[in-house]
Amino acid sequence: MKNINIGILGCGIVGTGVSKLLIEKKQFIKSRTGVLFNLKHVADIDIKRQRSITFKQGVFIKDAEKIINDPEIDIIVELIGGKDIAKDFTIKALKNGKHVVTANKALIASFGNELVKTAYKNNVEFAFEASCGGCMPVIKTLRESMVGNTIESMTGILNGTCNYILTKMSKENCSFDKALEQAKEKGFAEADPFLDIEGFDSAHKLAILISLAYGKEITLNDIYVEGITEISPMDIQFAREFGYVIKLLAISKNYKNNIEARVHPAMIPLANPLSYIDGSMNAVVINGDVTGETMLYGHGAGMMPTASAVISDIVDIARNIITKNKTRIPILGYFQENIKKIPVFSIKEINASYYFRFAAADNPGVLSKISGILGDHNISIKIVQQTGRNINGSVPVVIITHLAKEENIQKALKMISKLDSIIDKPVVIRIEEDKKI
Amino acid sequence: MKNINIGILGCGIVGTGVSKLLIEKKQFIKSRTGVLFNLKHVADIDIKRQRSITFKQGVFIKDAEKIINDPEIDIIVELIGGKDIAKDFTIKALKNGKHVVTANKALIASFGNELVKTAYKNNVEFAFEASCGGCMPVIKTLRESMVGNTIESMTGILNGTCNYILTKMSKENCSFDKALEQAKEKGFAEADPFLDIEGFDSAHKLAILISLAYGKEITLNDIYVEGITEISPMDIQFAREFGYVIKLLAISKNYKNNIEARVHPAMIPLANPLSYIDGSMNAVVINGDVTGETMLYGHGAGMMPTASAVISDIVDIARNIITKNKTRIPILGYFQENIKKIPVFSIKEINASYYFRFAAADNPGVLSKISGILGDHNISIKIVQQTGRNINGSVPVVIITHLAKEENIQKALKMISKLDSIIDKPVVIRIEEDKKI
Repeated sequence: MKNINIGILGCGIVGTGVSKLLIEKKQFIKSRTGVLFNLKHVADIDIKRQRSITFKQGVFIKDAEKIINDPEIDIIVELIGGKDIAKDFTIKALKNGKHVVTANKALIASFGNELVKTAYKNNVEFAFEASCGGCMPVIKTLRESMVGNTIESMTGILNGTCNYILTKMSKENCSFDKALEQAKEKGFAEADPFLDIEGFDSAHKLAILISLAYGKEITLNDIYVEGITEISPMDIQFAREFGYVIKLLAISKNYKNNIEARVHPAMIPLANPLSYIDGSMNAVVINGDVTGETMLYGHGAGMMPTASAVISDIVDIARNIITKNKTRIPILGYFQENIKKIPVFSIKEINASYYFRFAAADNPGVLSKISGILGDHNISIKIVQQTGRNINGSVPVVIITHLAKEENIQKALKMISKLDSIIDKPVVIRIEEDKKI
Repeated sequence: MKNINIGILGCGIVGTGVSKLLIEKKQFIKSRTGVLFNLKHVADIDIKRQRSITFKQGVFIKDAEKIINDPEIDIIVELIGGKDIAKDFTIKALKNGKHVVTANKALIASFGNELVKTAYKNNVEFAFEASCGGCMPVIKTLRESMVGNTIESMTGILNGTCNYILTKMSKENCSFDKALEQAKEKGFAEADPFLDIEGFDSAHKLAILISLAYGKEITLNDIYVEGITEISPMDIQFAREFGYVIKLLAISKNYKNNIEARVHPAMIPLANPLSYIDGSMNAVVINGDVTGETMLYGHGAGMMPTASAVISDIVDIARNIITKNKTRIPILGYFQENIKKIPVFSIKEINASYYFRFAAADNPGVLSKISGILGDHNISIKIVQQTGRNINGSVPVVIITHLAKEENIQKALKMISKLDSIIDKPVVIRIEEDKKI
């Protein structure tokens, strides 16, 4: 029987969940692993916060450094969140020879390479299954189950807040603001939802998936990011008429020497399994050259689903500790010396189909001008719909294009926007027609 | 650099796929694992079969025993299929100190315990990710990712042949026979589809999942099995009218001291993510007490998806060989001494909602008699529909019940069948209303 001492940094929602599991499921986990996990300390500066757990005398402390410097602690779980303090503590812990488990996507997306290198240098494990997709085992799947696959593309619904809002808007035909309000009431959105609704949380997760999927290094800033704040019920309605659903997608496609990496709202057809992922649920479709299309689905956030992923990392590390097995699997799925930087296509270089909605003056000839400009830019039209609904003095002209280059789209839109008959800023939503590349 | 020698027994479809991957992706897999896999021998008695691969001189042999007795071979991959010869070879290989990987669900479902014990006794690994759900990493997910979870229920579409047939019947309103014919033409059904369409293939896979999910032992014969041969387009049509889809499900629910384990066609509501799994795709919904609802989705069969899972097992074992790490994870996810037999509820003891279709003589009073009998058996009716469509001298009376005990259902149906006005054998399909237990 092996005892392994755990220290947790940060006792917010996930910290409480992990503590609960380690305490309440101690015997259960022992029956599966042979390891008795001892939660030695949990540190949080907020000692007054109400938590749905009671710790034994002396377990809860205020000083994180005490955990980091405790020679008896084997594994440290970083659940502080944010970047600066979390990074400082993680680096110190790794340098002190502690294995570190984290659920902190911003930390890894921003400083992943530095942390991974520090872990290697100090001969310890660094694990982060919970940082991406909550309880969905997406990191284990990419690193282990799909080890024989070249990953061709990944498309994920990786933010529960956005998916809840878009589902709400879609099912109840309500505005973004109203859906956001309800998401806050139900606890699916934070008081400051900026990182979620502007797409940055999804971009953090996509950066992590990319670093694991391709054995390539990218910079977070290379990911194109667009949030969902400008999605309107009218566009959701039009999407439905054409057989599409609007989702905030994190997309990456692998072209061997370049990749695409982008987060934006997109219309997807009902043939895409992601179109059925509703509410706060997450899912990611991974296309491997050997497996073909696969998908993982589950709760992408929340106290217990996230804690489940943290526990799986803790157990994996414990199994390596018992068997005196150091970094059995490369942290990023590939050996460090084989990981090279890969250029990311700028958004102008991608090809997609597009949905446009123009608010046009209700007079003839508008369509002729718009289609002329599109034609001049090598953009071919698949569907035009003019419903004649007059809304605030304009009628919506909806156009769906065939595949076109985004650079041409942007140029054409600039010209169309200048037309006298175009009253408002055009709405543009990319369509992800293909399931694969 | 470590070289690991592999021997493959059986070079049918999956054997060819695994061989291809080991040869064509040798350098790729090395870049991820540091291991150079050498496919030393592939054995098959059928030397004339056309295969989409050319082996180097001396690799392809006829004699499996040569592989089993080769002291240079570290890992043996059993891809013969069937039970008797496969079992004999697997036991011999394990006893010779070879690690064994298999994709053979019938083998594991029938002799799993014996094989696992033999592996332990000889201090070698025995892995079978490919035996269940093709490339979906369901075994790794249950054993590793969900290690902190008590599994509450599993519901799977685990047979691509049946799912293809039911999807075809549903989308094209065609008969079972016609859909089966097309499945054969497209290569989704074997010449003799008995094990698939009668539900036994799904039962094999469910037995494997159960052995991993609960840390309990069951006997294959304890699983209730019902195939899809009696599903008619009319019932699929009625299901649709009530908001259901018919799928062949493998279901297990965990009641701590007993479990349910059954394979049968079932109606599921559109709110169940399995309702969208179409064609030959597989998926399994797993409810953990910590994760809540999760789902894996992917190709459940086929040359390359299955090979992908085999490779992940080979790599896992290789990583243990390099690090001199023996049975790092218990083969069935729990230590052998903790695995106890758990009783399986007989089908009579389960509770479900039910769909009935009676072919009744077109005269008044039938419904009163049927509902009287149901009431006498404590079965409460949720919906009755009598469309008045006269088909071959009878009208269909469709009834959907609230939750009821199957024993009562069977007794009531026996009585109803004896009514003069009931012309044909009643159709009964269980409804899986709940996503969780």
